[in-house]
Amino acid sequence: MLNLFLNLPTKLYLGRGEENAIGEHIRPYAGKVLLHYGGGSVKRSGLYDRVAASLNKAGIAFTELGGVQPNPRVTLVREGIALARGFGAELILAIGGGSAIDSAKAIAMGVLYDGDVWDIYDKQKHTVAGKALPVATVCTIPAAGSEMSDSSVISNADTLRKYGHSEECIRPVVSVINPELYATLPQHQAANGVADMMMHIFERYFTRTENTDVTDALCEGLLKAIMKNAPAFVKNPGNYNAAAEIGFAGALAHNNLVGVGRAQDWASHHIEHELSAIYDVAHGAGLAVICPAWLRYVYRCDRDGARIFRRRKLVQFAHNIMDVPAEITDPDAAVMQAIDKLAAFWESLGLPSALSELGIPADRLEEMAKKSTGADTAKEFGNGSFLRLNWQDTLAILQSCA
Amino acid sequence: MLNLFLNLPTKLYLGRGEENAIGEHIRPYAGKVLLHYGGGSVKRSGLYDRVAASLNKAGIAFTELGGVQPNPRVTLVREGIALARGFGAELILAIGGGSAIDSAKAIAMGVLYDGDVWDIYDKQKHTVAGKALPVATVCTIPAAGSEMSDSSVISNADTLRKYGHSEECIRPVVSVINPELYATLPQHQAANGVADMMMHIFERYFTRTENTDVTDALCEGLLKAIMKNAPAFVKNPGNYNAAAEIGFAGALAHNNLVGVGRAQDWASHHIEHELSAIYDVAHGAGLAVICPAWLRYVYRCDRDGARIFRRRKLVQFAHNIMDVPAEITDPDAAVMQAIDKLAAFWESLGLPSALSELGIPADRLEEMAKKSTGADTAKEFGNGSFLRLNWQDTLAILQSCA
Repeated sequence: MLNLFLNLPTKLYLGRGEENAIGEHIRPYAGKVLLHYGGGSVKRSGLYDRVAASLNKAGIAFTELGGVQPNPRVTLVREGIALARGFGAELILAIGGGSAIDSAKAIAMGVLYDGDVWDIYDKQKHTVAGKALPVATVCTIPAAGSEMSDSSVISNADTLRKYGHSEECIRPVVSVINPELYATLPQHQAANGVADMMMHIFERYFTRTENTDVTDALCEGLLKAIMKNAPAFVKNPGNYNAAAEIGFAGALAHNNLVGVGRAQDWASHHIEHELSAIYDVAHGAGLAVICPAWLRYVYRCDRDGARIFRRRKLVQFAHNIMDVPAEITDPDAAVMQAIDKLAAFWESLGLPSALSELGIPADRLEEMAKKSTGADTAKEFGNGSFLRLNWQDTLAILQSCA
Repeated sequence: MLNLFLNLPTKLYLGRGEENAIGEHIRPYAGKVLLHYGGGSVKRSGLYDRVAASLNKAGIAFTELGGVQPNPRVTLVREGIALARGFGAELILAIGGGSAIDSAKAIAMGVLYDGDVWDIYDKQKHTVAGKALPVATVCTIPAAGSEMSDSSVISNADTLRKYGHSEECIRPVVSVINPELYATLPQHQAANGVADMMMHIFERYFTRTENTDVTDALCEGLLKAIMKNAPAFVKNPGNYNAAAEIGFAGALAHNNLVGVGRAQDWASHHIEHELSAIYDVAHGAGLAVICPAWLRYVYRCDRDGARIFRRRKLVQFAHNIMDVPAEITDPDAAVMQAIDKLAAFWESLGLPSALSELGIPADRLEEMAKKSTGADTAKEFGNGSFLRLNWQDTLAILQSCA
């Protein structure tokens, strides 16, 4: 275990009707708020009205900016920053899923940042925001984990770049999850969320750091709870009991509880970001395609003398998460069966297993592979730590799931 | 799952040498501090000097009060309150285990409370403190979980009462755990700590609340990680890798991460408090005696129509925590084997399995049983929720482990 810092300050309220108290919960932080959300569904469902009523009851003034898209754009973030400044907002309140929350986090930093907000995301610039307005959320989709995380992902349509940024100052101060709100989700969106939250755990689970029994056990437990409830949830997102487990697991999957004290990987996420920067595919669906291909490649690769760590961890994954029977003692057989089971599980939720199913042709794989490792710049920085990928590795992974 | 509120604001720093930065970590909260600790070991080990140096470096003035005993006394708490008020302390910094931390929490409430601090603990009075000075900790024993919890247990030698109190305002703002500091622990103290942290999880795990897959998985994972590392840790508390897992698990066991959204039990803790209020036994050792007796009694009791929930949960405990083979499908056999395995595990760590081994004679069992359920007062309030115990139940449990 590495020395660790655990910081989970988000006050999480999860359960039926909890959105009706959002005003009371954020009153200690702000008297003026920017409401930030996506399309019209927040209004059609009545959620907007309930949140507005709660803010009014708490005496909180608000203005609003809708229109957040999946893979939220920096152009709307810039609009939000100007609006929040003009209004004198003291807190950004996101209503929606990961896109609305990530966009709200970008606005929260941008309001206090003296320059263009894209600087903070641009991987070449290594900018630290240092401070942000407080962010609160009413989270309507279980997926991104952004409701308790310190990270935000924003896309730039001009440069076809999609970058994440992590900083403690954007961890929400309050998040409300009412699993009843998931009931209207389309099944494919529910499935995408499941893949996304599972990947948030896998990115932390697959590490070369040794002596990580506690966080391994938390990872394994969360993954099994997710896999137990996901089929019922995707079949019917209105199944409250399954939805509540999925919603809680999604929040815990990405607040870094299960990732402290260990090196983390994130290669699959970075590869997926390059897919969705160009093709605008759903993040979870992209991950469901890449992860099994990445696992197979990583298991087989014998570069860098760390293969023994990777093999051991993948055998642990096979037995403790994918329930490959203990009798299968041959590690190759156990691991390949486990990866096949994971891919089959995602397919059973209706998720894709090949880039072609996402509508991604084979003609720009090299471009995406190079972008994901920085090989398109002066100096390739690579990707991941469980196995450090170069662009050729990445191309091989993408080709294997084309 | 019940509607839940998760609040884990404690900034946890865990790892080698982390105590050397305690001054920097608490500087945002206070310029004047009361240091609170137990016996001379904190000074002999050099820990006191390292903490003092860190406070000096951060420009924090401090006064101090040592002398905290196991089962910390309200008399010393009163002394600490007077000292903190006189000095103008803005934060109470505990150095030590659960006793020092619990005593520090009592002082932190007492400084801002207009009345005798025992009022806050006295079960008959239902007093709410409402506010407290911030508490920080340098935690030297993995056990109490008080370093991230909202609770404190204080003993009153005049009335032979030992009561716990829980309130968000006493959750530490900063806690530092350096597992290297466990190296000088006597083996029996290490074993007591293991039993105590396991019980913090069991008290939450055994519930009638249904649909608790996520928190069940977290409970099961933590317990298995503890049981994996406990033998090496108790054998040699200087085994850093085992100590770090045990220290982290102990902090997570009692911050309520694994207890949100469900009814909790706490009957075993309340019974143990009556033992140690009279006999001053180690809390963990007392719990190791009571828990198996409680589990056997609870499993057999068919009162109140909820036996089916209890049986189901105990079968889950048998298979998911105690690794009773899946082939043992008879629930009675599985559960009894699991309870026996748990008792044997604790015995293997050198923990007692009978009250007589704790030096507790059989002549005051009824008195303790009645106190634990309030049957010595005008109105018996009972104990626990998985099975609501009356004093006769409790007496039977105590007799079964005499």
